[in-house]
Amino acid sequence: MNLVPIGTIRSPYLSREAAPKSGYESGDECIIEVFGDFAAALDGVEQFDRLVVLYWLHQARRQTLRVYPRGQSELKGVFASRSPDRPNPIGFSVVRLIEKKGNELRVVGLDAVDGTPVLDIKPALPAENRL
Amino acid sequence: MNLVPIGTIRSPYLSREAAPKSGYESGDECIIEVFGDFAAALDGVEQFDRLVVLYWLHQARRQTLRVYPRGQSELKGVFASRSPDRPNPIGFSVVRLIEKKGNELRVVGLDAVDGTPVLDIKPALPAENRL
Repeated sequence: MNLVPIGTIRSPYLSREAAPKSGYESGDECIIEVFGDFAAALDGVEQFDRLVVLYWLHQARRQTLRVYPRGQSELKGVFASRSPDRPNPIGFSVVRLIEKKGNELRVVGLDAVDGTPVLDIKPALPAENRL
Repeated sequence: MNLVPIGTIRSPYLSREAAPKSGYESGDECIIEVFGDFAAALDGVEQFDRLVVLYWLHQARRQTLRVYPRGQSELKGVFASRSPDRPNPIGFSVVRLIEKKGNELRVVGLDAVDGTPVLDIKPALPAENRL
């Protein structure tokens, strides 16, 4: 199960400490730059205003199984937290698409540091909110 | 960027054709069985009723960049579709957690075929719905 980077994130957050803890806490614009080899896969993406973005948290510690969630004094499993430290450090945010320009998507709602590899982009389905 | 399976999905869908097209269209119960090495990472997961589950779509075609979305006659990019065929075939569903019993989670809302490798489990954040 090997991943290929399909693009990269250009964000104003230059370190893990500078990034918001979750995408929905970010009001800043980021650019998702999709590599030329995958540009055809973007056709039609402009018709959606909410996208699911998956990315590789390249600074994560993969051996971590328990963490202290924000503001809590009890250790919890990483599957009960949104910590970037987890066995498969795949980040997930739902973003608002502002503009598609060639291979680039201007979005709001990412917590990723500058240079984060992008793995996948999917339309967010309204029905997923109603579960 | 190499992934490790942290568990497996036991589902009533024995083939890709038998599975619903999206998790929110599934009303069936599935079991997420987390492997013993990662059981500690589940501590506290029972406090959430909605979880994000990421899994590996092991039957996907990774070379596909364009598909005909359901009910449409025009080719679209895979990033504008929820097709399992995509460069990094990572499935994403928001599920309802019915019960946690040891290493096993009983959930509703998965579209994955029986035996699908699980990559990650995260709490779904209510704020993500309001973007």
